[in-house]
Amino acid sequence: MKVFISGGGGFIGYRLAQRLLERGTLAGADGRQAAIGQIKLFDGAFPPNPDPRLVCVTGDIADSAAVERALDADTSSVFHLAAVVSGGAEADFDLGYRVNLDGMRLVLERCRKLSRPPRLVFASSVAAFGGDLPEILDDSTTPNPQTSYGAQKVIGEYLVTDFTRKGFIDGRSLRLPTIVVRPGKPNLAASSFASSIFREPLNGVAAACPVPDTTGIWLLSPRKVVEAFVHAHELASSAWGVNRVVNLPGITVTVKEGVEALRRVAGEAVAARVQHQPEARIEAIVKTWPVRFRTPRALAMGFTADRDIETVIRGYIEDERITLR
Amino acid sequence: MKVFISGGGGFIGYRLAQRLLERGTLAGADGRQAAIGQIKLFDGAFPPNPDPRLVCVTGDIADSAAVERALDADTSSVFHLAAVVSGGAEADFDLGYRVNLDGMRLVLERCRKLSRPPRLVFASSVAAFGGDLPEILDDSTTPNPQTSYGAQKVIGEYLVTDFTRKGFIDGRSLRLPTIVVRPGKPNLAASSFASSIFREPLNGVAAACPVPDTTGIWLLSPRKVVEAFVHAHELASSAWGVNRVVNLPGITVTVKEGVEALRRVAGEAVAARVQHQPEARIEAIVKTWPVRFRTPRALAMGFTADRDIETVIRGYIEDERITLR
Repeated sequence: MKVFISGGGGFIGYRLAQRLLERGTLAGADGRQAAIGQIKLFDGAFPPNPDPRLVCVTGDIADSAAVERALDADTSSVFHLAAVVSGGAEADFDLGYRVNLDGMRLVLERCRKLSRPPRLVFASSVAAFGGDLPEILDDSTTPNPQTSYGAQKVIGEYLVTDFTRKGFIDGRSLRLPTIVVRPGKPNLAASSFASSIFREPLNGVAAACPVPDTTGIWLLSPRKVVEAFVHAHELASSAWGVNRVVNLPGITVTVKEGVEALRRVAGEAVAARVQHQPEARIEAIVKTWPVRFRTPRALAMGFTADRDIETVIRGYIEDERITLR
Repeated sequence: MKVFISGGGGFIGYRLAQRLLERGTLAGADGRQAAIGQIKLFDGAFPPNPDPRLVCVTGDIADSAAVERALDADTSSVFHLAAVVSGGAEADFDLGYRVNLDGMRLVLERCRKLSRPPRLVFASSVAAFGGDLPEILDDSTTPNPQTSYGAQKVIGEYLVTDFTRKGFIDGRSLRLPTIVVRPGKPNLAASSFASSIFREPLNGVAAACPVPDTTGIWLLSPRKVVEAFVHAHELASSAWGVNRVVNLPGITVTVKEGVEALRRVAGEAVAARVQHQPEARIEAIVKTWPVRFRTPRALAMGFTADRDIETVIRGYIEDERITLR
């Protein structure tokens, strides 16, 4: 079987590819485990020296010909992660729609023409939610995104559901919490700070926190989100039924609680590297995001959250082989 | 001020245009009533001999150049009604997406480039709802459409909301109940029977009813839907806030209740012209549609439903100048 990961050069996409290499198998159309013969990553750029077992194709997800060429007719599993992040889609309206909506449609249209309907897992986001929100969101909360990124993700979910209903794909959409701790550098995502406040201090540099320390974050670790992508793929179609979208479980952590956990794990000197530098633009976006969820559907389907923020920080230290001094 | 009605050759669009001619004014960007200088209708076809005060432009809503040419830069009000109906979008997947999604985006993109952000009223539909539904839907029910038409309408709503949030338009989306009684001929809409069972008998011909007589319909009359479009336009932007979508009020009528009302209004001979001819394809679509709603938000905003189905039937008889024998 062949696997295709759009956004495979990105942090989550590449981690997912590594996880699939470890597993070696995924459920086929008949539900039975089948050996993965090829994992193809499609993205604008890739980490240096990617694993030679991975096929890396550089291209633009909004380029119809490129998507058609890259997505082989006998692909059986597609993970669609390619996206312009929230801050980016807000800053460049046209780019956001081109990548996050047009790109999505190209992938779906290509999937429709494959030799058999592939399983497709779509990375949606809790940025789907906004506006007048209840204190605790649940599986019945209606998305009312207050960013273009969120709107594009919700639209993507509806497309995935409709293409599934028509039998063109077997689709599943996951509303991802904010992923913490992301390695690497800060990016344009308004949520970038949520990783920076852990990552930068652990790497010996100061981190600017643009939001008040009472700000809550609904988060999931990279380990858990990769597990969620695989689990979403492996579930039988009947486990999803006519509702193809799920809010993933997560944990709610305030900036203050996060910094305290960082202090417990890595010491006062490290925690002291988090500095408050209010940024109205970021705060305006972040405060539209939901903070607390009940996720009974996801839990019943077997998705799981991290135990606590300390576990998340320790996982990052292990994965990135950071030496605490 | 200039008004643009996409789908203006259709029954509702044309009625709306006639209503605007009667009114002569609409709220401008400042909220004050302004004289309507031009009403332009855009559609693939028009009724014969349209009112000479209307500007009728024949074109394809999914043709970018045609939309750009037709939608004048100084247009201040847009009513977007152009759509491939439910049965049509289900039968021709590509056509549905081309007209109902690509066409919608072209209109929105054009609106974004007008000299000032226009008010835009979008005709969405209760076909937005489907899947596992509560017995009575309300303003918090999450759309999970089970037709491509419904998916396209929900996607359109999210686009209207996002373009509004960005300040490109001042948008308002109305989820229309099934419109009853439509004049003219049956069409490809799966809901076509809901008008046929009244219209055909009143015009002296037999009507085939493809669904069981216990089937409930959530309906609104042509008079009330035209009133709703105008009202939606006239409301101040602040009346909508960050939620740009509303479920219109309606009434729930079963086929049986409808036929009984027809008997009371027009007599036994007319009512006897309704014949049951089950059609699995239609029933399968119709049974995914919601039947009962609570619509407190719409009522608080000043939208109103018809009093009862007899009133709806009598309105049709009056509007179409039908002589009962």
